[in-house]
Amino acid sequence: MGNETHEKLVLLKLGGSVITNKEIPKTPNKDVINRIAKEISDAKLGRLIIVHGGGSFGHPIAKQFKIKEGFKEQLQIQGFSQTHQAMLELNQHVVDALIRHNIAAFSISPSSCIATKAGRIQDFYYSIITKLLDTGFIPVLFGDAVLDNTLGFTILSGDQLVAALAIRFKADKIIIGVDVDGLYTADPSDDSAQLIPYIPSHNLKALMHNIGEAKGNDVTGGMKGKILELTPALNANIKTIIVNAMKEGNIYKALKGEKVIGTLIDKE
Amino acid sequence: MGNETHEKLVLLKLGGSVITNKEIPKTPNKDVINRIAKEISDAKLGRLIIVHGGGSFGHPIAKQFKIKEGFKEQLQIQGFSQTHQAMLELNQHVVDALIRHNIAAFSISPSSCIATKAGRIQDFYYSIITKLLDTGFIPVLFGDAVLDNTLGFTILSGDQLVAALAIRFKADKIIIGVDVDGLYTADPSDDSAQLIPYIPSHNLKALMHNIGEAKGNDVTGGMKGKILELTPALNANIKTIIVNAMKEGNIYKALKGEKVIGTLIDKE
Repeated sequence: MGNETHEKLVLLKLGGSVITNKEIPKTPNKDVINRIAKEISDAKLGRLIIVHGGGSFGHPIAKQFKIKEGFKEQLQIQGFSQTHQAMLELNQHVVDALIRHNIAAFSISPSSCIATKAGRIQDFYYSIITKLLDTGFIPVLFGDAVLDNTLGFTILSGDQLVAALAIRFKADKIIIGVDVDGLYTADPSDDSAQLIPYIPSHNLKALMHNIGEAKGNDVTGGMKGKILELTPALNANIKTIIVNAMKEGNIYKALKGEKVIGTLIDKE
Repeated sequence: MGNETHEKLVLLKLGGSVITNKEIPKTPNKDVINRIAKEISDAKLGRLIIVHGGGSFGHPIAKQFKIKEGFKEQLQIQGFSQTHQAMLELNQHVVDALIRHNIAAFSISPSSCIATKAGRIQDFYYSIITKLLDTGFIPVLFGDAVLDNTLGFTILSGDQLVAALAIRFKADKIIIGVDVDGLYTADPSDDSAQLIPYIPSHNLKALMHNIGEAKGNDVTGGMKGKILELTPALNANIKTIIVNAMKEGNIYKALKGEKVIGTLIDKE
């Protein structure tokens, strides 16, 4: 409590494809969540914010009711609530695992404190997160169904949230935990695809057309979508490391600043 | 969507002793929750906010870690998070039941948008609730573990929340659903105790010393505590009806403004 030294902050994103089985609706990858919770606990960071994706919890419902496209018909109303409920359920798995590992994790519902405008964060009541950090808590947020000032409602991706939080709290670095080793020169399932270990921030735009797209149900876009959402943070020169969170030890190493296989996006 | 006529709003509080079994930790009264969800659905109110208590979910943990008294030692940090997690779990039972009954319920976490000062609400990011109501949603909030600007953290009771929301949104009436028929001249378990059907608001203070105290684990106080928390709304002349939510039909009748056994507190 009372961490007033303002040690550098780390933003950790846990992808939905890491913490859930994307093939089976509402199936958490409990072993993976537990293992990552232990790695976070072992890393003992003072100032950390965790954001997680939706995977097979939020995405199928959001897609079915076309929540991202905004309010168009009364039928979607239930889908909006259900998307948030599904995300709360997944969040409970994550936060409970963190608490079991003695991490002072505290759940924050983005839809309770954020409204977007045409899909971009417009109003964000940050002060609770500031207070949580200063009190020694680790805020845990997630991609969510949120109210939108022009669309009625929409989906706020975990990646957009990560960028906004990283900029607001002047993060030292962003760690993006996904289920591949990083950014590739082509679709990772393609034999010719090669991992890109380092991308200077200013080269990112040129490289974007080469980045492989994720398959499946991800309404917030695949890897290309991720990078697009992170652009504001990359433009603010916040170092970003994309690592494979399915491989044991990677999250720990990335948190500690140790050498780790992945893609580093940073200024030269 | 787009309910701009600003029809009068009703605040409905569901006590923790109604929606949970207070004797057994983390036991929801599923049948009662379902039956009340049906009554709310049948009443078809346009503008409604629901707030529920903690019962055997939030209270035992909050009490064990002395969360209400504020931050005193590191050990409490986990208790603060766990109190909120337990409340989210109970909230899920309530919101899911409402959604099953085709109510556009949407969960709002008080700790994500409210900070108190010495136990009283100081900062409240109301704008999401305003937007939810205008979009046709029924916001569902709950007593919660919240950050406090002087104590570090504390417990925000559902009753204090009800009063604040009723005043802010100019509620037409407040309905307090409890597990007794209303306010009594003595402890309700006492044979001599008589139900008080009507109390003029200005007489309330004089009557307060006669109101029986609830027994058990309720860190937010019994009936006397409830009335104290509601005082700001009563002073603002918001009609308040205390009814027994364990008895079928009472919540429906109270929502519809029909005659119902209970205690009405109103100006003369």
